[in-house]
Amino acid sequence: MRADYRPIRIGLLGAGSVGSQVFKLIQEDADELANRIGAQLQISGVLVRSLDASRDYSIPKEFLTTDAESVILGSDIVVELIGGIQPALDYVRMALESGSDVVTANKALLANHGPEIFELAERVGAQVYYEASVAGAIPIIRPLRESLAGDTVTRIMGIVNGTTNFILDQMESTGASFDAALEQAQQLGYAEADPTADVGGFDAAAKAAILSSLAFHTEVHIDDVYTEGIEKITQLDIESAKDAGYTVKLLAVCERVDDDSIAARVHPTLIPQTHPLASVRGAFNAVFVESEASGELMFYGAGAGGIETASAVLGDVVMAAKRHLGGGSTLNESTHAKLSILPIEDIVTRYQVSLEVKDEPGVLAVIASMFAELEISVETLEQSTIDSESETVLLTVITHETSERSLQKLIEKLNQSEVVAEFKGQVRVEGV
Amino acid sequence: MRADYRPIRIGLLGAGSVGSQVFKLIQEDADELANRIGAQLQISGVLVRSLDASRDYSIPKEFLTTDAESVILGSDIVVELIGGIQPALDYVRMALESGSDVVTANKALLANHGPEIFELAERVGAQVYYEASVAGAIPIIRPLRESLAGDTVTRIMGIVNGTTNFILDQMESTGASFDAALEQAQQLGYAEADPTADVGGFDAAAKAAILSSLAFHTEVHIDDVYTEGIEKITQLDIESAKDAGYTVKLLAVCERVDDDSIAARVHPTLIPQTHPLASVRGAFNAVFVESEASGELMFYGAGAGGIETASAVLGDVVMAAKRHLGGGSTLNESTHAKLSILPIEDIVTRYQVSLEVKDEPGVLAVIASMFAELEISVETLEQSTIDSESETVLLTVITHETSERSLQKLIEKLNQSEVVAEFKGQVRVEGV
Repeated sequence: MRADYRPIRIGLLGAGSVGSQVFKLIQEDADELANRIGAQLQISGVLVRSLDASRDYSIPKEFLTTDAESVILGSDIVVELIGGIQPALDYVRMALESGSDVVTANKALLANHGPEIFELAERVGAQVYYEASVAGAIPIIRPLRESLAGDTVTRIMGIVNGTTNFILDQMESTGASFDAALEQAQQLGYAEADPTADVGGFDAAAKAAILSSLAFHTEVHIDDVYTEGIEKITQLDIESAKDAGYTVKLLAVCERVDDDSIAARVHPTLIPQTHPLASVRGAFNAVFVESEASGELMFYGAGAGGIETASAVLGDVVMAAKRHLGGGSTLNESTHAKLSILPIEDIVTRYQVSLEVKDEPGVLAVIASMFAELEISVETLEQSTIDSESETVLLTVITHETSERSLQKLIEKLNQSEVVAEFKGQVRVEGV
Repeated sequence: MRADYRPIRIGLLGAGSVGSQVFKLIQEDADELANRIGAQLQISGVLVRSLDASRDYSIPKEFLTTDAESVILGSDIVVELIGGIQPALDYVRMALESGSDVVTANKALLANHGPEIFELAERVGAQVYYEASVAGAIPIIRPLRESLAGDTVTRIMGIVNGTTNFILDQMESTGASFDAALEQAQQLGYAEADPTADVGGFDAAAKAAILSSLAFHTEVHIDDVYTEGIEKITQLDIESAKDAGYTVKLLAVCERVDDDSIAARVHPTLIPQTHPLASVRGAFNAVFVESEASGELMFYGAGAGGIETASAVLGDVVMAAKRHLGGGSTLNESTHAKLSILPIEDIVTRYQVSLEVKDEPGVLAVIASMFAELEISVETLEQSTIDSESETVLLTVITHETSERSLQKLIEKLNQSEVVAEFKGQVRVEGV
C-alpha cells in the first residue's frame, strides 16, 4: 500500500443483499485490497430508502443516509445497486456528470438506457463497469470486451437465469409439473412471489440485450430481443426431448446472422445432452461463446446470490480504483457496427413439434406432405402410443433448419387439418 | 476509426503457427480492429530465424527480417511468440527497456523469469500481457487478475494440457494402454515426437506457476511446483477409478493451504465423474476456480491451436494498443502476499491406493491395521478377483484426507509386508 495516496471514496447506492456484502468485503479485506490497488478504499456513504430497515449485514448507522446527492457527490466511485430504472438512471447520470466512474449490477437500466449512459460516460471521460449485470459472479463482460477484443464473436448461448434453470432441471430430474417445480423454487428462495420477470424470460432478455450489444458492437435494446418464457413447457416437451437425446433449457441466443445482421432471442430450447450447456444444473449459469478464431468457450458459475454478485461488483470497484489512480480507459462501448436486428420471423433454426394425430392408415403421409409443401425437412419422427384405448397417437417431429415464418404456416395448417386431433406445441432446437 | 492517430506499430517475434495467424488476423480485420481501438494497427516487422522457411500463412517477404533489434526498436508493441527462454528473455527485456508494452504467449519464460520481467516492466512503466500463456484461447489471466481482483481465490484446479487430457480420455474411452494412446496422439498431431514436456507434466507445471503467482500474489517459480506426469497411469488405475465413480485427469492444483501458505502441484488426479472438470474431453482445457465470495467458476475452451491462441494474443494486442493511446495501467503483478510454498510432503489430500494381496483369511485385517497405525482412514475398499487360478486378489482403497508424508510411510510398510504380493501404485483424489 502506498501511503502517499489519499483514500479512494466509494459511494454505495443500496444496501440490499449485494450492497451489504460489498460493504462487508471492503471493510474486512481493507488491507489486502489496499495492497492490490495501491491506495485505501473508504466507504463515503451508503444510500438507503429507510434508515431503520433491517439488513443482512449490520452496516454501522453513521454510514447510512437517505440523501442521494451527498453520497454521489462525495465519492470518487459510485456503486449503483438499487436496481430498476428510476431513480437509478438519475443517480448514474449525476455520478457520471460529476466525474465519477460508475459500477453497476443493474441489467434493466443497461438493457433500456445503455446507449445514453455509455455516451454520457464517453463525453465526460468516465467509465461504466457492469460485470455483475450478467450472470452474477461469472466473468463474462470483461472477457467479451477485452479478451475477445481481437476476435469476431459469431454466437452466444447463455443460461443466464438461475430460477428458470432450476425449474427446468427439477421438471426433468423429478418429473414435476411446471407449477410444482415453480412452487418448489419459491419455497427455496430461487423464485420470487411474482415470478414473471424470471419465468417469462424478461430477466434473461435484458441480459441478452447487454451481451449482444457488447459482442456485436451494435445498440441492442431489450425490446429488440424476442422473448418467450418457460410457462408453457410441459412434461411432454421434456420427455420427448429426453427420448431424442436433448435437454430443455431457457437460452439467451445472440447470433451474427450474416455480415449485416444479428438476432437476439430468449426462449425454451432443446440442446443435445452432450452439449456443455446441458450439464449446467440447478440454479447455475453458463455462457457459451463461439468466435471465429477462439472457437468454443464456456464460462460457468453461480449466476446470482448476494456474495457471489458482490465479488463481481468488487472486481469492478478495484479496477475503477486502479484507474482513479493511474488513468487510462478500457475499450469503450462501441456501436460502430450498426448491424440490423432481425425480427423473429426471419430467424432460421430447428424445431421440435409435438402433435396428437388420428391413429389411422395414411395419416403419416398426410402430415409428411404438409411439412414437404412448406419445404420443412424432417430429421426425426417419433410415433408413440398414448394408451391402448386411444384413437390417437402422439407424433414428435424434429425438423431440419427452417424459418420461423414457415413454421408458423405449418402450425396453422396442422391446426386446420382433419387428421390432427391436437397441436401440442413447438420448441426450438440449438447447439446441434 | 480516428484518422488523427498515427498507426500503432506491432512487432511480431516469431512466425510459427500462432505468429502467422496473428499476422493474418491483423491484416484481414484491419478496419474492424481500428474501429475498436481508435487507431490502425500496422505490422512493423516479423522476426524469423530464416527468411526462406515455409509457413502456414504466407507473410509477404517485405515484412520478414532476421534483425531482432530493428523489429523491437521499431515497434510500439512487441509480440513475443518464439517460445523458450533465450533469446526470448533478451528480446522482452530490450522491448520493455525501449518503452514498449509486450504481449507474450511464453509460459516457460514467465514461469522461470516472471518476477524479473514484471519488475522491469513496473520500473519502466510498461505492461506485460500474457493471456495466451495459459490455456490458449480461454480467458483466464484477465478474469483472475481483474474480475476476481476483489475476491480471495482459495483453489484453482486446471486441465491445462491438451495432450495429456487427450491421452487419458482415450485410455478411458477406448481401453487403450498409455503407449497406444500416446502413439495415437502423436499421429493426430496432439503430441510431439518427444512428448516429455507434455506427458511429464512440465508444460502444466509452468502454467501452474503462472496461475498461482497471479491468484495468490506470491512469487511461484516452476521449480516450486511439485510435478508428476501421466507415464505411470495404467488401465488398472483408470478402471478402478471408473468403478468408484471417478475419472483420471492431469490436474494443475494451486491452493491456499492456510493464511500463510500455498501449494502448487501437477499430477494425475481422480475427480468425481459428476465434477464439471470430468466432462472436459479430448484436447480441451478447463480451469476451475474456487473463491471465497464468488464460489465455483469454470472457464472452458480450446487450450491450444494456432488460431485459437492467436485470438488470445490479439485480445492482448488490442488492449495494449488502447493503452498506447489512452495511458493507464492494469493491476500490476503483485507479490506482496509473500506466502510460503509448501513442499509436497506437507500436502494433505485423499488417495486411491492399489495393491495385490494374498487371498488368505486375515489379510484384510493386516492391511487395515497398517492404515490404522498411520491414522489413515479408509473411505472405500474394493476387493476384486484377478482370475480363478490366482492366489492373490486386487485391493483398491480410497482414503480420507492424509498427508503425503503419512502416505509414503504407508507405501513403505505395504512394500515390506508379507501379505502384499505387489504394491501397484497410488493416485491423488481431488474435487470431492
